[in-house]
Amino acid sequence: MPSDEQSIIAVNEAFYAAFAGRDLTVMEDLWAQSRPISCIHPGWGALHDRPSIMASWASILTGDEAPLIRCEHVYVRVADTAATVVCEEVLGDSRLAATNGFVYENGAWRLWHHHAGPIARRVTPKPKPLLN
Amino acid sequence: MPSDEQSIIAVNEAFYAAFAGRDLTVMEDLWAQSRPISCIHPGWGALHDRPSIMASWASILTGDEAPLIRCEHVYVRVADTAATVVCEEVLGDSRLAATNGFVYENGAWRLWHHHAGPIARRVTPKPKPLLN
Repeated sequence: MPSDEQSIIAVNEAFYAAFAGRDLTVMEDLWAQSRPISCIHPGWGALHDRPSIMASWASILTGDEAPLIRCEHVYVRVADTAATVVCEEVLGDSRLAATNGFVYENGAWRLWHHHAGPIARRVTPKPKPLLN
Repeated sequence: MPSDEQSIIAVNEAFYAAFAGRDLTVMEDLWAQSRPISCIHPGWGALHDRPSIMASWASILTGDEAPLIRCEHVYVRVADTAATVVCEEVLGDSRLAATNGFVYENGAWRLWHHHAGPIARRVTPKPKPLLN
């Protein structure tokens, strides 16, 4: 049986696979259904309702500039039925810092928050990624 | 007895009061001691260790440009012993979207994650803030 950390990493990876694969159906399934959700795209104000969030993903995933994105440097923390993943999103030569919040819902970990923004500078050396 | 939501809002407000008041001692006390913490300042890469995070706050709070910051549009969600606050940070004419993650530790809610980045555009009308 996978640990919570492994399950959350798998859902986080599925999120970026749906993102890179422009798969809106999977993207919608990855978000919590029974809990409020929120999403902050780079430079956007926060979206707090499911229709706006899914419309934003539809726009991003079907646009001409849908990003070839991948995820690196994944850190996971779990506290009972919620978890926070901090990672870096790589798009060509650009990197973004991302926060992905997960909640345990009906037997599975689902996204309840996403926040990403560009990294303009690095202040300290990058520590080795850890599960913590 | 205050609800979890009220307690978390109070700690979130204390965070911005310490930020605006340049109070590094209070700032340090607001962060979890027994759990890993992380912090993503605007444009920075993620910091994952307490010494780096507290050094970053020391730099920000003691700098010539320590911001007169306030918090608006606060949304709180709780799942057992973790919570996510999404809010806007107001600095003069600028606004930032912020994610503040909290964890319940030794009888109190404490920060275990902060992520902030500038808002460049607003896509949808701002909904009325709610506790949800």
